Amino acid sequence: MKNYIKVDEWKIVEEGFDPHLNKISESIFSLGNGRMGQRANFEETYTGDTLQGNYVAGVYYPDKTRVGWWKNGYPEYFAKVLNAANWTAIKVRVGEEELDLNTCTVKEFRRVLHMKEGFLEREFVAELSDGRKLKVNSKRFCSIVDDEAGAICYSLTPLNFDATFTLTPAIDGDVKNQDSNYDEKFWDEVYQETGQDNAILVLRTRKTGFEVATGMMFSVSAGGRKQELQSRPLSSERYVACEVSVEGKQAETITLCKYAVNLSSENYPSQTLVAEAKRTLQKVCSKGFEKMLEEQTAAWDLKWQESDIVIEGDVAAQQAIRFNIFQLNQTYTGEDARLNIGPKGFTGEKYGGSTYWDTEAYCVPFYLATAPPEVTRNLLIYRYKHLEKAIENAAKLGFKDGAALYPMVTMNGEECHNEWEITFEEIHRNGAIAYAIYNYIRYTGDKEYLASYGLEVLVGIARFWKQRVNWSDARSKYVMLGVTGPNEYENNVNNNWYTNTIACWCMEYAIEALAHVKSAFPERYTLLTAKMNFDDVEEVSAWKHVIDNMYFPMSEEHGVFLQQDGFLDKEQILVKDLSPADRPLNQKWSWDRILRSVFIKQADVLQGIYFFEDRFSEETIRRNFDFYEPRTVHESSLSPCVHAILAAKLGDEARAYEFYLRTSRLDLDDYNNDTEDGLHITSMAGTWMSVVEGFAGMRVRNNALRFNPFLPGKWTSFSFNILFRGSILNVLINKEHICLSNQSEKALTVFVFDDPYQVEGGKSVKAAYRTVDGRIETKS
Amino acid sequence: MKNYIKVDEWKIVEEGFDPHLNKISESIFSLGNGRMGQRANFEETYTGDTLQGNYVAGVYYPDKTRVGWWKNGYPEYFAKVLNAANWTAIKVRVGEEELDLNTCTVKEFRRVLHMKEGFLEREFVAELSDGRKLKVNSKRFCSIVDDEAGAICYSLTPLNFDATFTLTPAIDGDVKNQDSNYDEKFWDEVYQETGQDNAILVLRTRKTGFEVATGMMFSVSAGGRKQELQSRPLSSERYVACEVSVEGKQAETITLCKYAVNLSSENYPSQTLVAEAKRTLQKVCSKGFEKMLEEQTAAWDLKWQESDIVIEGDVAAQQAIRFNIFQLNQTYTGEDARLNIGPKGFTGEKYGGSTYWDTEAYCVPFYLATAPPEVTRNLLIYRYKHLEKAIENAAKLGFKDGAALYPMVTMNGEECHNEWEITFEEIHRNGAIAYAIYNYIRYTGDKEYLASYGLEVLVGIARFWKQRVNWSDARSKYVMLGVTGPNEYENNVNNNWYTNTIACWCMEYAIEALAHVKSAFPERYTLLTAKMNFDDVEEVSAWKHVIDNMYFPMSEEHGVFLQQDGFLDKEQILVKDLSPADRPLNQKWSWDRILRSVFIKQADVLQGIYFFEDRFSEETIRRNFDFYEPRTVHESSLSPCVHAILAAKLGDEARAYEFYLRTSRLDLDDYNNDTEDGLHITSMAGTWMSVVEGFAGMRVRNNALRFNPFLPGKWTSFSFNILFRGSILNVLINKEHICLSNQSEKALTVFVFDDPYQVEGGKSVKAAYRTVDGRIETKS
Repeated sequence: MKNYIKVDEWKIVEEGFDPHLNKISESIFSLGNGRMGQRANFEETYTGDTLQGNYVAGVYYPDKTRVGWWKNGYPEYFAKVLNAANWTAIKVRVGEEELDLNTCTVKEFRRVLHMKEGFLEREFVAELSDGRKLKVNSKRFCSIVDDEAGAICYSLTPLNFDATFTLTPAIDGDVKNQDSNYDEKFWDEVYQETGQDNAILVLRTRKTGFEVATGMMFSVSAGGRKQELQSRPLSSERYVACEVSVEGKQAETITLCKYAVNLSSENYPSQTLVAEAKRTLQKVCSKGFEKMLEEQTAAWDLKWQESDIVIEGDVAAQQAIRFNIFQLNQTYTGEDARLNIGPKGFTGEKYGGSTYWDTEAYCVPFYLATAPPEVTRNLLIYRYKHLEKAIENAAKLGFKDGAALYPMVTMNGEECHNEWEITFEEIHRNGAIAYAIYNYIRYTGDKEYLASYGLEVLVGIARFWKQRVNWSDARSKYVMLGVTGPNEYENNVNNNWYTNTIACWCMEYAIEALAHVKSAFPERYTLLTAKMNFDDVEEVSAWKHVIDNMYFPMSEEHGVFLQQDGFLDKEQILVKDLSPADRPLNQKWSWDRILRSVFIKQADVLQGIYFFEDRFSEETIRRNFDFYEPRTVHESSLSPCVHAILAAKLGDEARAYEFYLRTSRLDLDDYNNDTEDGLHITSMAGTWMSVVEGFAGMRVRNNALRFNPFLPGKWTSFSFNILFRGSILNVLINKEHICLSNQSEKALTVFVFDDPYQVEGGKSVKAAYRTVDGRIETKS
Repeated sequence: MKNYIKVDEWKIVEEGFDPHLNKISESIFSLGNGRMGQRANFEETYTGDTLQGNYVAGVYYPDKTRVGWWKNGYPEYFAKVLNAANWTAIKVRVGEEELDLNTCTVKEFRRVLHMKEGFLEREFVAELSDGRKLKVNSKRFCSIVDDEAGAICYSLTPLNFDATFTLTPAIDGDVKNQDSNYDEKFWDEVYQETGQDNAILVLRTRKTGFEVATGMMFSVSAGGRKQELQSRPLSSERYVACEVSVEGKQAETITLCKYAVNLSSENYPSQTLVAEAKRTLQKVCSKGFEKMLEEQTAAWDLKWQESDIVIEGDVAAQQAIRFNIFQLNQTYTGEDARLNIGPKGFTGEKYGGSTYWDTEAYCVPFYLATAPPEVTRNLLIYRYKHLEKAIENAAKLGFKDGAALYPMVTMNGEECHNEWEITFEEIHRNGAIAYAIYNYIRYTGDKEYLASYGLEVLVGIARFWKQRVNWSDARSKYVMLGVTGPNEYENNVNNNWYTNTIACWCMEYAIEALAHVKSAFPERYTLLTAKMNFDDVEEVSAWKHVIDNMYFPMSEEHGVFLQQDGFLDKEQILVKDLSPADRPLNQKWSWDRILRSVFIKQADVLQGIYFFEDRFSEETIRRNFDFYEPRTVHESSLSPCVHAILAAKLGDEARAYEFYLRTSRLDLDDYNNDTEDGLHITSMAGTWMSVVEGFAGMRVRNNALRFNPFLPGKWTSFSFNILFRGSILNVLINKEHICLSNQSEKALTVFVFDDPYQVEGGKSVKAAYRTVDGRIETKS
């Protein structure tokens, strides 16, 4: 754990330069706009420890390293997100000396992520070897207005000398992935061009053949006067740059504005990439840096209106929650249904930048509540578009008749994870995909989605579950053998309660969806059943037979649902009995020992209780929580939020807050010593959930928002904006009341502590605060 | 399945050249001498489809392809057997045309493996493009007398022309492995030297740093006259050769004798490798080809005296069993305790040439009965030498206090398999290693081995099992969670009956061994217990507690031992219900489907019954056999032999013979379409077991050999030689009697159908044949 980030409500601030923290900061200060992103690498040359990272959404490389070669059904490759051309590079030479924070003395270093405005700023004074002092200021951002563009404003002020500055803005595509086996390179050069103030580099990925055109254009001013450029083009394999000389005078600022674009062949025909890149460059360049930044600030202002959480009385918590919201909004904007949310977003290489069930289980609630419905809808359509491939994937494993198994990890709908216990067995992901459809409709009321897209996905998934169970003569029940539940510290278990539960729910929901589409869109229904070759008598009755005869493991003794068959054969020790030296287990224990232990990586039975909470009595929830929580090590960043929400529901405010703390500053404080690899983007949505579904107790039931809030002890108040059915609702919770402000025109009925409140457009209403035991709080 | 090998009692014969069969023949006609070996690649250039393979025992490369990177306890690498320098190459140019069976017309092609004498012969007439006809004969072998050497006698007879022949004997080290990820190369050149009639090439493996010196020396004669050589040295990276020209006259034979040696830095200091290679070359060269072959024939004659099986009335069976015995003796000679038996021996790259539990479970019985005790003893000492590493391996997984877990796959004692469900969980291998010690002592009576080596291994293994079980409160029994049994079509199961059984047996046997050493070698015992820090009260009593309270899964309903917990939850379909289109499952079904199915890859419960047959009533054996056999797909070549032996024991002669047939000609007839990858060496020992332990019903009990034989219907008789306690016993079984001939001086008491027979040295006795129902057979 580190503690070097300065606390501030709206800014992430690092003061002073510590090379040992550099890779962590490179992650924390990452920038992105949904279409591309980058780690906060320095513009100028840095020969110290760094993880260079520039990423273009949707561009990947298929690593074909062979594993389990003789087992059928394995995917062809593991997708890797690619380290792409670096467009931020600006080499700086002062006379003969190159500016490099690894070799000069760095003073007054300050790095700031301006979350309100959406840009990164860095400032320092470099003392060169001969005592010359140079002040540097750099601002840069990935534009969320022009989402193929980014801009840098890089200023140099010689404080105590005159000198000739040689500036070399570059596009460096000679990059590789840190995690490539055998140091394989992934990019081939297709084209390059260098002009006086611009350059273009087109690279093509090996094997996958994606082409990305990266262009730059720049201008230089000195002492406020635009400079006529006499630049020298530089070029080598996968590298283009322009070298310009500028006479620098003491105390006069030289500014280089660099505009860059990344265009991918996913969006343009390969032949037009260069022309389109030039056109886009021209467009942003003619706006200029200031105008672009103005637009960026305005666009971020809008995002904050929709998604901000304000915490009073705890600046560190305030900073943390905004950081999480900021990074989520940098990662996914919902404008392109071909894109999704990698667990590390644009901040690192790990998890291959691919799509996991994190999206449906953890990110969907965030985007539902903080962005227009189209954003989440695009996440769902992403999966709809992959339905054919999910059916192929299931067929590869031996399922038939349109059964669909969505991949555990994917870029384009194809499975690209290569561990059998995950790829073939962690099939509960299929349930999360169905659940996201349910969740989207519950939240938005957009039932038409079922007819347009949802039903086909639901039927494919239900068909899969029907075939995936088998009848056990021994139990006279259906069983589900050989699965891996959300708790990945168990593999290949039988009758994982969560998986059995969500499987049956999927079939139930598919039946419900069929009935709805049949009655509300009869023509579409006829068309769809024909398309799917669906027999709505036989198939539905077969599903019902499974639903009615499914086996669910239980412990009579403990009065709990059993995570899987045989769970009680394990040695029943608790997390509190573990020595700190054993934690985290995944770093200290062998995989063998982890698998055999009782310890749970992340919510498993409790994930099911969270999803289907209305089905269980509070007593049941409590018994299961009390049984599983003490066995859970939360070694997935996705785990604490579910426990926080359940603890809050059970009125255990202290523990709810404790779970929330585990992820709220996970990356800012580098809790797990792994922030240098990138940020835990999808878990950031879990932190948001802890606050909104946990502390505020938000639920949607019967087309209405409901709150059952409490105020964490340390906080004076917290409030947040929620988009719901076309309205923006601000919810403020303090020790006295819950204030609901309807910031749009349409009236809303909102439940607080189960009492309905009518909130007219533009108006606020207040409900009295109650403590967990039901006392109405009075002013203290 | 193919059927192109001509049937012959002592020879493997291929007639006519079919390029499509070439890779299969390259496997079948492989040569080896325990220290090196090679596929039957052609000496002359061949541009057709071929898998080049030359292997040097003990020389491997650590493939570091990353898998499951975040899981602790994984091995550092997967060992790969290396394709080593090819010393068989002799390029032949006739005038300007290169001899290449892929481009010329091939007539009268005949390839013969002379198993009696231990050499490979190839003969053909090549018709060149202009009609010139050239007769070629080649004989070669890897010497089992000079086991670092091989020799080739290569003769060319121009049938209808005169021409200048250019012959280029070479050592070609510019080779790579077919299975290398990313086409990585494994060898660097260290040294080369080329003389008039000789050349030396020293290569060093990357990463592991093994050095291998390969040398050659040759002479040429024409028309029976030795030729003075004016050779031209050729050399390039990792390649040395000598080019010689010889005037060839019609009908006159040109003969090139090439001698080659392979010396490894495992046996000589690196600095002396070149000198030692020259010395060895000189030695074999001065013997000459004829003398070397004479010695080879004599040495093989001795091997056949010890290990031959003679089958009358079925030439195909005769050929097959001799082929199996021949290949086993080519693979392992027992002279070096650092070497072991790779599942493909020296015939291919698969399975990395590493050591598996195949050695202890399947090969040990063969070598015990057909070779002096030292041969098997060296196999055991191989594991003894790896004890420290097995303890380290267990420690890596979290076990302590001297617990030993032997690797699933190894070259030098380090685990080098990289699938967790095997590496960490297929721990029953530990049991096979203990069983081999028991088996060796049972067979040889060499109880002193326990004091010298065995006890330490047994204690390390017993300690492992003690720690590997855990107490289940739910069952009030010890359980063993998360294992993979011999049936690798199930992974990560709980309470595999076989593993639980052998685990308890290991502890029992360790207790017995401790008691024996304590009483027979008290001083050694004191020394050993101190060395092992062994507490013979506490530890033994803890083991006993486990033995007495172990859980063994059973089915009351079926009256059988249950393969593992939950086995009866599977859909209970039988192999006979499978469509042929589904077979073999491992090629037709996804891994997911295989895991969930009831189908058994290889004997699992039945393996335990085979090992511990004396503990079970015939009725119990029959019930388990009748339950598991119909569920077994035998997709490991190691499976049918166990079923054959049990079927024989149960008096089911027809099925015993049927199981035997599945492996006896597995490679000769290319049953599974995979012989081109190499031979199934370890399963060949299983075939031997089917005949000797199955048909002949051989057992060792109370220091005596026992036979309970039957004669397979098709056969007139079969007989075999057995080494037992210093005697060679020939056992002949025909429809009338069982004839025991003691070919040594010491008397032996042998049991046939439970009746004792005293067989004096140099004498024979006969017992009457009985059918399975006990009828004494009379002449028919």
